Amino acid sequence: MKLLSFTVNDQNKYGLVTTGGIIDLQALFPQYGSLLDFIPCIHLLDKLPPSAKKANYTFEEIVFLPVITNPKKIICAGINYGDKKITCYEKPSAPVLFIRFADSQTGHLTPLLKPERSNEFDYEGEMALVIGRGGRNIPQQEALSHIAGYSCYMDSSVRDWQHSWFTAGKNWPATGGFGPWLVTADEISDPQKLNITTRLNGQTVQQDNTSSMVYSVAELIAYISTFTALSPGDVILTGTPGGIGKKRTPPLFMRPGDIVEVEIERIGCLVNPVCSDAIGK
Amino acid sequence: MKLLSFTVNDQNKYGLVTTGGIIDLQALFPQYGSLLDFIPCIHLLDKLPPSAKKANYTFEEIVFLPVITNPKKIICAGINYGDKKITCYEKPSAPVLFIRFADSQTGHLTPLLKPERSNEFDYEGEMALVIGRGGRNIPQQEALSHIAGYSCYMDSSVRDWQHSWFTAGKNWPATGGFGPWLVTADEISDPQKLNITTRLNGQTVQQDNTSSMVYSVAELIAYISTFTALSPGDVILTGTPGGIGKKRTPPLFMRPGDIVEVEIERIGCLVNPVCSDAIGK
Repeated sequence: MKLLSFTVNDQNKYGLVTTGGIIDLQALFPQYGSLLDFIPCIHLLDKLPPSAKKANYTFEEIVFLPVITNPKKIICAGINYGDKKITCYEKPSAPVLFIRFADSQTGHLTPLLKPERSNEFDYEGEMALVIGRGGRNIPQQEALSHIAGYSCYMDSSVRDWQHSWFTAGKNWPATGGFGPWLVTADEISDPQKLNITTRLNGQTVQQDNTSSMVYSVAELIAYISTFTALSPGDVILTGTPGGIGKKRTPPLFMRPGDIVEVEIERIGCLVNPVCSDAIGK
Repeated sequence: MKLLSFTVNDQNKYGLVTTGGIIDLQALFPQYGSLLDFIPCIHLLDKLPPSAKKANYTFEEIVFLPVITNPKKIICAGINYGDKKITCYEKPSAPVLFIRFADSQTGHLTPLLKPERSNEFDYEGEMALVIGRGGRNIPQQEALSHIAGYSCYMDSSVRDWQHSWFTAGKNWPATGGFGPWLVTADEISDPQKLNITTRLNGQTVQQDNTSSMVYSVAELIAYISTFTALSPGDVILTGTPGGIGKKRTPPLFMRPGDIVEVEIERIGCLVNPVCSDAIGK
């Protein structure tokens, strides 16, 4: 199943992708105010009668929102894909982790905002996972059962504001593209076997497979849940493959007018135009 | 004025300190569910009739909660006090910033939890400020007018889980002591002229003045609001003075049974016992 958050007629809603469009789940389950609230109840969709499976909206009628608009925690792994040029790669002793605020996100097909203060707005295509069942000290071997589903994420970096502590480079408004939808975990038998590709204006700039992750999805969940409790709707970004713009010669950064895409096998393709953020002057 | 969050009879409330105890503001302003929600309306207290200024609870009847229980953003400055031993100190090019989740906090007189997995649970006494009026790109010269008030903060560090990206060392449950109360900004004419002292079991372990901050309160607000919008109730921690346990010879860490205090001139004294967190095994 594919679940999403969207706006229609100025109302925030969440829905289910079906033939020909989107089923308005908020109308069916008005007691849950957002996809975050609905996450623990995804199993209710198994019992949806055929009469309820009619599209209420076409994709042309809606504006995509970040898949989870209001996660309590967005925890992001940095430097989490192995460098294939290094043959004797030593696994670092702990995952590199930083935090995004929920208001730094934006949805599929909506603009990523390049701060006017920055000349180094870089792309980072990533796989995101959304927690379905919370917990603390989740054992690695049980970790996948805590996942509601997977999505694509454009974890853009404002490199000239980024340091070893990440915070200022990763929290500008509308720099985290999240979508188009959540593919539920039952459809992804192995999250470590998915091709992931980032394209800038149609040119492939990152290409790898989630098998190259240094810390696997299960290892990240186990490690993170050691020091903080995870709740339904929390988001974990799993890091970006090689090929980022800052490390190229010459560097390659995103500019207003560009189109950036993150495509992940079996999940989908997140597309964002890049616009200028005059407020970030 | 001193504002606080507390629990009484298993109910979370917020209140105002008065002679002999606490006025239950939640009873007077039931439309605001927490101190966070009430922050934009602090001015209403100026018109409180004398009849409403009677204490509803004594301090013995309540359990202190973190001053703001549910901030949307807790942004923490690291390495923000000058080292007085270095005479030619060069100001770093940007503040060191990391993020705490709201569920890592605890109130005055409640236990700080030392994770059993850690042998390096360190103290960091700090001044916290709470945003009263939100904004983006707040100019430094207007920054102090955006502050609702000030409090003490024990920004404990789990050093053996801390790296240059901070996240895992700063987000264990009940490692951020926040209290006892918020002293409203009108009572602090200059936040850069306050003595700050941390005591461990009665011994002074950190002693400085907020004049030693590398980035001032106003500079931090201006810098942070460049890359993220600030809202009423957001919390900024302003960094800790020298004297932390990790840098001592021999090192000095907190252990179950210890008592740690952060006292700031004109604000108050935050006291926390240290207990063991068996869940963090």
